[in-house]
Amino acid sequence: MPSLVKTEHVGRIVWLGRVPDREAALRSEALKEVQATYAGIPGEDHGGLTRPSCARVVTQYPKGTEIRNVRQLSVVSSEELAAIAEEMGVESFDPGWIGASVVVEGIPDFTHVPPSSRLQTGRGTTLTIDMENRPCHLPAPVIDEDAPGHGKAFKAAAKDRRGVTAWVEREGPLAVGDEITLHVPSQRAWAP
Amino acid sequence: MPSLVKTEHVGRIVWLGRVPDREAALRSEALKEVQATYAGIPGEDHGGLTRPSCARVVTQYPKGTEIRNVRQLSVVSSEELAAIAEEMGVESFDPGWIGASVVVEGIPDFTHVPPSSRLQTGRGTTLTIDMENRPCHLPAPVIDEDAPGHGKAFKAAAKDRRGVTAWVEREGPLAVGDEITLHVPSQRAWAP
Repeated sequence: MPSLVKTEHVGRIVWLGRVPDREAALRSEALKEVQATYAGIPGEDHGGLTRPSCARVVTQYPKGTEIRNVRQLSVVSSEELAAIAEEMGVESFDPGWIGASVVVEGIPDFTHVPPSSRLQTGRGTTLTIDMENRPCHLPAPVIDEDAPGHGKAFKAAAKDRRGVTAWVEREGPLAVGDEITLHVPSQRAWAP
Repeated sequence: MPSLVKTEHVGRIVWLGRVPDREAALRSEALKEVQATYAGIPGEDHGGLTRPSCARVVTQYPKGTEIRNVRQLSVVSSEELAAIAEEMGVESFDPGWIGASVVVEGIPDFTHVPPSSRLQTGRGTTLTIDMENRPCHLPAPVIDEDAPGHGKAFKAAAKDRRGVTAWVEREGPLAVGDEITLHVPSQRAWAP
């Protein structure tokens, strides 16, 4: 019996985006369809087969160490973004504010799907989830541009709702409207 | 707070190996030190940045689909191999029988460490664990060569003890005797 099993959780891609140059702006621009490669989304500044390590993994690597890139994509859930918006007191949450790559709807407790889960479209394009993402303060000024005064509420409101980081396991198209099925490792919990 | 956290579980590499040609033999040959690259262990037939998908992921991919290779290395635990040997009624378990790449000792419940955990040596070389491996019947004839009549007991004895599959996140040396520290995703369980 294989370890990786298909679940009954079938969602849908409702938004796609790309950050062209994170030095210039953290905001991602909306797209309708992309051809995902092993390096991620073409033209996305977080793409690449490898990346220089950042503050998030400073426990593991001195900053700037070349490592494999498991943060090619930031995948978030439309239900969780709606909950963030509500808690922040804004009408709706623009995924571009946090530089999101993919927004899915229909997968419950999305931020906490098991590490090493896969998201597979009907056309076979597949993303491997590294693990939960954690919110930071960086989107605050981006949010303030569109919703003045609300940026500072983001980090707390996004706790447990910041989605996951992911990378491309099988290349292919990703498009708004694509069905996406969750596959999860079926192993029992670690009992050290 | 980062999602990936260092644990107090520090083990040691006690064996290293490589399968030069799996068509010729499933057995891995012992090595003392290797230079792990993003493609895995040089000269290992299971290496490569990508691989043609196999029966284990046929739920996800038609056989032979090009996908990223998360099975570059087979990592097992010396304590679990000893338990397999005891259940099989053999004196000791040769990691070469199952084509193992790395044997670690000192990490409890090794087969079930969380998916997306990292194993990092003191010199910084880092492996990302995809998930639990599952035993199959293929090693039976290899075992029978050295321990006649015992091969058929392997699959059942190795249940929950077959170790994990892994790939190289940071390149560098791996050597017998290296300390290896376990880092795990710190997120709560999924609650769909």
